[in-house]
Amino acid sequence: MEIIITEYLGYCFGVKRALKLTGEVINNNRHKNKKIFTFGSIINNPGVTEELSKKGLISVQDISEIEKNSIFIIRSHGMSPDIINKIREKYEPEIIDTTCPFVKKAQARAKALSQKGCFVVIIGNKNHPEVLGIRGYILNKNYMIVEDEKDIKTIPQNKKIGVVIQTTQTKEKLLLITGRLLEKTRELLIYNTICDITGKKQDSTKKLAENTDIMIIVGGKNSANTSHLAEISREINNSTYHIESFQEIKPAWFRNKKRAGISGGASTPVKDLIDVKKAIEKL
Amino acid sequence: MEIIITEYLGYCFGVKRALKLTGEVINNNRHKNKKIFTFGSIINNPGVTEELSKKGLISVQDISEIEKNSIFIIRSHGMSPDIINKIREKYEPEIIDTTCPFVKKAQARAKALSQKGCFVVIIGNKNHPEVLGIRGYILNKNYMIVEDEKDIKTIPQNKKIGVVIQTTQTKEKLLLITGRLLEKTRELLIYNTICDITGKKQDSTKKLAENTDIMIIVGGKNSANTSHLAEISREINNSTYHIESFQEIKPAWFRNKKRAGISGGASTPVKDLIDVKKAIEKL
Repeated sequence: MEIIITEYLGYCFGVKRALKLTGEVINNNRHKNKKIFTFGSIINNPGVTEELSKKGLISVQDISEIEKNSIFIIRSHGMSPDIINKIREKYEPEIIDTTCPFVKKAQARAKALSQKGCFVVIIGNKNHPEVLGIRGYILNKNYMIVEDEKDIKTIPQNKKIGVVIQTTQTKEKLLLITGRLLEKTRELLIYNTICDITGKKQDSTKKLAENTDIMIIVGGKNSANTSHLAEISREINNSTYHIESFQEIKPAWFRNKKRAGISGGASTPVKDLIDVKKAIEKL
Repeated sequence: MEIIITEYLGYCFGVKRALKLTGEVINNNRHKNKKIFTFGSIINNPGVTEELSKKGLISVQDISEIEKNSIFIIRSHGMSPDIINKIREKYEPEIIDTTCPFVKKAQARAKALSQKGCFVVIIGNKNHPEVLGIRGYILNKNYMIVEDEKDIKTIPQNKKIGVVIQTTQTKEKLLLITGRLLEKTRELLIYNTICDITGKKQDSTKKLAENTDIMIIVGGKNSANTSHLAEISREINNSTYHIESFQEIKPAWFRNKKRAGISGGASTPVKDLIDVKKAIEKL
């Protein structure tokens, strides 16, 4: 079995930065008594978040679980400024912001569009923390989150429509939605806020899927960018499997296959890809 | 033979207005000694322009043919402000502006985009007077006229790209070009300057082409919007013929056909459509 790992592997810039900042906070507070909270996971990778939790990071699902005199880390996907302000007012924590700079740009663009009087369309997954965060920067209720074409039907005709897109979506989706939005307005301002590395990872995964018999996509099931890689690969290569860890690998998948490709998302550690490679070699 | 004429027939608003203004100028000057000039045709219809020429309208191909102490009519497609200014300075004529208000809007949008620092893309026919006129409103040389997808290859990566489209182009082309432009920039501002009636004429012609065995599209061969109607019809209905006058009709076209459809452009008089209907009835 020939096994090829994608050329764009490992953490993206934003994930690296978030993990570095979080690591520093944990280290600096080792001998202090402060609790360290985050709202949801720092990054969408179960293995990594479990490890951070062992080191003392408390990931809450509701902001009422935060305590006074603590440290609060804003996760890499960013958060709505309303919620950050609520946390600041109520618990007065030290706030560490690990929001990915590309996400920050998308937030700023959404705000700018709404200041320009646009009806803002955010293309992305409705419940994804990044999208909920971006939504928080829109000044009024003049917006809609669009997951797919059919969502557009309910958008009213508008003088101006502005578009931002979740940093980890695909160019294909941006184009598809743009086409339908041209029916809803005469003035369409598009900020393509997809991050560079997302596009590169997508292109290299596509290439790999074309040249292999089976594709293993490694990364959190709740990771939007990893899920997109799996979708892109599956369109080209029927034998595509999205797993979170090498332990999920099934020997039956590899029957009669000669070339396997491995790719992973922005929040997938290089180690996880290598573990998958080793596991396949042992089959 | 059943014969159906499109529901959106006759002159569009801009053509009506241009012909009305021109008629008034000709009438008011009947007993004066002033010559009346226009640069190219007032509208793209050979029959109509011939008639106007009989009434004294002098259509020049080069501005050096204009004379002092005359009247100069800016045609419905609009003109570059540079050329208008040259004419004004050199010949000091009385200027009557019949530029279609929708074209004026496209000109204003192009100017605004260039003031905002955008690289301006004009989607349209490179030699069409409307497009040359719009081009004249772009403040610097930061623009390109795009006729089809392959023109986009030479556009450099830009921080901001702004788009206007010739008023008589198709939405399909706007979308196609938009898709390719998303590869050239992160910020794309699209002004859909296609005029309303163009879209309606296109839609009704499409519907007619679907429900007939043969389609006759009537209008100037140099009329962009009529040519688009012919293209749209031909895509659906192989038996599509673009003619300028009923005299071009050939009986052979109608052999074994049961339902004929007739449609015409924004500069096609209703009379021309009716003449075609009568000619088919006599076959």
